[in-house]
Amino acid sequence: MFQSFETKSSPQFGRERVTALRGRFADLGIDGFLVPRADEYQGEYVPASAERLSWLTGFTGSAGVALITHAQAIVFVDGRYVTQLAEQVDGTVFTGGDLVNEPPHLWLPKNAAKGFRLGIDPWLHSPAEVRKLEKALVGIGGSLVLLSANPVDQLWSDRPAEPLGAVAIQKEEHAGKLAKDKIAEIVSLVREKEASAVLVTDPSSVAWIFNIRGDDVPHTPHPLSRAIIPAEGKPEIFLDRLKTGIESAAYLAQLAVQRQPDEFAARLARVAADGGRIIVDPDLAPFALITAIKSAGGEVVETNDPAKLARACKNKAELEGSSQAHLQDGAAMVEFLYWLDQQQPGKVTEIQAVKALEATRVRVGQNMQNPLRDISFDTISGAGEHAAIMHYRVTTETDRPINAGELFLIDSGAQYINGTTDITRTVAIGAVPAERKRFFTLVLKGMIAISTARFPKGTRGCDLDPLARIALWKAGGDFAHGTGHGVGSYLSVHEGPQRISRLSTQELLPGMILSNEPGYYRPGAYGIRIENLVFVREAEEIEGGDVPMRSFETLTWCPIDRRLVLPELLTGEELSWLNDYHAETREKLLPLIENEAVREWLIGATEPLEA
Amino acid sequence: MFQSFETKSSPQFGRERVTALRGRFADLGIDGFLVPRADEYQGEYVPASAERLSWLTGFTGSAGVALITHAQAIVFVDGRYVTQLAEQVDGTVFTGGDLVNEPPHLWLPKNAAKGFRLGIDPWLHSPAEVRKLEKALVGIGGSLVLLSANPVDQLWSDRPAEPLGAVAIQKEEHAGKLAKDKIAEIVSLVREKEASAVLVTDPSSVAWIFNIRGDDVPHTPHPLSRAIIPAEGKPEIFLDRLKTGIESAAYLAQLAVQRQPDEFAARLARVAADGGRIIVDPDLAPFALITAIKSAGGEVVETNDPAKLARACKNKAELEGSSQAHLQDGAAMVEFLYWLDQQQPGKVTEIQAVKALEATRVRVGQNMQNPLRDISFDTISGAGEHAAIMHYRVTTETDRPINAGELFLIDSGAQYINGTTDITRTVAIGAVPAERKRFFTLVLKGMIAISTARFPKGTRGCDLDPLARIALWKAGGDFAHGTGHGVGSYLSVHEGPQRISRLSTQELLPGMILSNEPGYYRPGAYGIRIENLVFVREAEEIEGGDVPMRSFETLTWCPIDRRLVLPELLTGEELSWLNDYHAETREKLLPLIENEAVREWLIGATEPLEA
Repeated sequence: MFQSFETKSSPQFGRERVTALRGRFADLGIDGFLVPRADEYQGEYVPASAERLSWLTGFTGSAGVALITHAQAIVFVDGRYVTQLAEQVDGTVFTGGDLVNEPPHLWLPKNAAKGFRLGIDPWLHSPAEVRKLEKALVGIGGSLVLLSANPVDQLWSDRPAEPLGAVAIQKEEHAGKLAKDKIAEIVSLVREKEASAVLVTDPSSVAWIFNIRGDDVPHTPHPLSRAIIPAEGKPEIFLDRLKTGIESAAYLAQLAVQRQPDEFAARLARVAADGGRIIVDPDLAPFALITAIKSAGGEVVETNDPAKLARACKNKAELEGSSQAHLQDGAAMVEFLYWLDQQQPGKVTEIQAVKALEATRVRVGQNMQNPLRDISFDTISGAGEHAAIMHYRVTTETDRPINAGELFLIDSGAQYINGTTDITRTVAIGAVPAERKRFFTLVLKGMIAISTARFPKGTRGCDLDPLARIALWKAGGDFAHGTGHGVGSYLSVHEGPQRISRLSTQELLPGMILSNEPGYYRPGAYGIRIENLVFVREAEEIEGGDVPMRSFETLTWCPIDRRLVLPELLTGEELSWLNDYHAETREKLLPLIENEAVREWLIGATEPLEA
Repeated sequence: MFQSFETKSSPQFGRERVTALRGRFADLGIDGFLVPRADEYQGEYVPASAERLSWLTGFTGSAGVALITHAQAIVFVDGRYVTQLAEQVDGTVFTGGDLVNEPPHLWLPKNAAKGFRLGIDPWLHSPAEVRKLEKALVGIGGSLVLLSANPVDQLWSDRPAEPLGAVAIQKEEHAGKLAKDKIAEIVSLVREKEASAVLVTDPSSVAWIFNIRGDDVPHTPHPLSRAIIPAEGKPEIFLDRLKTGIESAAYLAQLAVQRQPDEFAARLARVAADGGRIIVDPDLAPFALITAIKSAGGEVVETNDPAKLARACKNKAELEGSSQAHLQDGAAMVEFLYWLDQQQPGKVTEIQAVKALEATRVRVGQNMQNPLRDISFDTISGAGEHAAIMHYRVTTETDRPINAGELFLIDSGAQYINGTTDITRTVAIGAVPAERKRFFTLVLKGMIAISTARFPKGTRGCDLDPLARIALWKAGGDFAHGTGHGVGSYLSVHEGPQRISRLSTQELLPGMILSNEPGYYRPGAYGIRIENLVFVREAEEIEGGDVPMRSFETLTWCPIDRRLVLPELLTGEELSWLNDYHAETREKLLPLIENEAVREWLIGATEPLEA
């Protein structure tokens, strides 16, 4: 299994560890210390060696930050983790904070004493974060203390070693572009900006530029690494030699000088010396690098990671690979949904469903000779009221049967060498009340609105987001998450800068892969989400049109539960889309499925609906 | 007539005036001078005394700025004025500049000599503009010279006097709130911000706060004036005593000290003295006031005009007044559309249509004892290819008959004491090609999408804008203007901060009046726009909903040309909206119309359409 259903929290150590941490404050000259979930690479998934927040507090959620002062120990989390926090930490030691409305930089001015000295590990915070904290502290006559060593690491006696996952070469047939050509383009960009070098700090960017993949963190196949790409001379990649075998080391040697991660600071100082101008992305880089460049006499040029947008706009090979990966994943989903339909309501639990789905993906991957490399995130498998928890992670403690009369929501994804998938289906278990079918159909209308959208050049993610909501709005409903996120190419399932959300001003460019996943949630009762992946392309010209348009092409093929659709709520255009989608799903997936019973199920699940 | 069809341009003086202006450069210590269309009040309409750009260049458009240097004379205009500029100015003296992509602050760094000294009249530029210019000049080692007198005014020997339009009191029945209560709220705000006073520089804000109206500029009934509202003591209003009669002077005396406009600088300096903190809106105030405050020893607190948002959110009396004004205006529109339908195609010109409409509004106003005070902007009356020009202003030179087979677009509005209207209808003259009906129906779909929208608290103008476009986008079309602008209450027909446009992040709040006017334009061929005014309100609760919503209520009642609608392109919901709208239009307007033939026409024009 690529997923665990255990809660690894150890709240019993919270008191002694916080006490030990406080014991270091006097020596360090600080009155408090911040312990974020983020690691040195600012990634979504962090290795065990960077689980500092969990080690200190017991809280294992994917976002949060602890502020430890002499008098208080506060763990700031967002709304989805309030309950989990209460369950996982020792309530006699820790209190909860509001990460959204009153994060540390807003909490401190109201609550910290005048002259408060806050210690941070500058490797764990981005320049943007540091600036906010600094401003907050200056306002109360306090100061930020950048510590040269992290006191948590010093106390953490049995801290796991940093991961050493094997590095593999991502072949040209999947990457679609040689690393040397990507590097050449980045070098041109560095020269254009009259800079000495660019610092690549996002491991996904390093993976994309050098066409390599790794195995250091769960679910995202990038190796933890950094690179310096200079205007003149050979790039340097900081990637432990224990991660690269003979083949990948030889491959990398053609592109760059491979150095050990601990050589990074010295090399950076060297490039920065004598006024070297170094490009850094202020949202992705650790603040420590900014000070390192400046103290070496260099100049920081803040601008976007040069790989970010290029990586987001997939090339033909990447899109073709993704398309193949999605067909395979669709076949696995169909086998899973068939299996689920055969089970007696109440006999299967959420965890059993996750296991069945992963096993199916493994089996289909073997049959199609394209193995499942990983799941792309922990499967969200929620029945009944659990489906209303947007980021529900089922554990042995929360696991429950999927009962008759309920909606079952399953949001999952896979990592294949040719693409990353992410799909959500909400399924009826037995007879479901009409009101839930009504909301299912309204969510479907939003999902169809995005699928069928055409939009002019310049259209941004925020422009399309309302199209996914208006049908729900008219019925008095909404959903409290974005409509879609970017997806990588055998990389992170959550990739920027593309998004469909109210705050995303990034233009939607050809080749960008996005999720399309409106939902509806009734806390304590039920939840609905329907998700396909799509990509942006230039739209075909339309008779009578006079503005060139872009549109989405669907990647995901898998039946949408017809039993939950009220056709009378769909417009003619919407119903046609659904019937066409199902016809195409049948046509594409039937050749991939051998089992006669599954084939019959697929045919039934893709029958056209009538108005 | 409230509108002129003449072109008042006098291009023949351009050469000598530019030469004279250049002759002053040496004495003033400048290498160039900026002449904007904007006046001292940053208003949309400027009095004749402030038509400096037109006096200098001959260009009479509503937006633009001239940059005169020793070697060049450039008039920067936006796309809609390129043709007009070429026709109105002496091409041997002036060249055209691009106000959108390369306005002066972008043009100067590329083209001006090192050390360039640019003169400006600091009364004609906002702080935001001045900062951009300053930054641009610093980049080339140049400087901005703030002139204490405008050299154009010194050369302009027959410059008209500043207007002295009579001031009237806007009664409580229309204003809905007493001026003393509005002032009290603003005073609280000033105290909350720990400021000494707020400077009110927008004449519409002065008019709204003091419940007065004026007659200084065309189409916007605010008196040109400013006010200082202090945290302690009586407000001061700077309004020429020649504008106020006995009654309005006595009224104002209860609220404020009325002073002459030329006392303003001295009074401001007095409030600013000894570190007075003065609130100023950096988008609305002349830059001259910033320097005046600072040089008097005061501190500038930059924040929004305190009347802006309060004015935008109309109270019950204002909404009720607007609703009444719209019924009256709808009756006038119906009489006009009836008249137009009776004319033989080709026999009526665009100007004749404008005259007929204004005459109808005057007549209906007399009958209903609520006279037309003004039109709210110059009527856009365009037939055939003229309808494709979004801001077309018909003149005796461009006037042409409205011919059979064409679309005729008429966009107009009225100022009544109880409200400001703005309505566009596009009408079929004889038989119109099906393709134009198709686009008319697509525009109508967008207009219905806004009319029927429901949206949660927090929804901004930019969130709704795409709903007005998606039907057109799907057909390969779009329109190059926002979907809607804010509208005042017997004030400016273009009022901020509310808008429905891709860049408007202002939340839509209950009471805001907005236009809803999608369109479609085929340059050289035809143009379509359909416009109603609507206001934001809390939506009625819906069975099964769980999020409180807002919605729009329609103010404008007037038939939409049924002959141009292709019902087969409408969804059932859209067709219902149209038929309901027409039924309600008939019900509301029929009692206001006496003429039997017009009544019959209205009944026919509001018959339901069948799918």
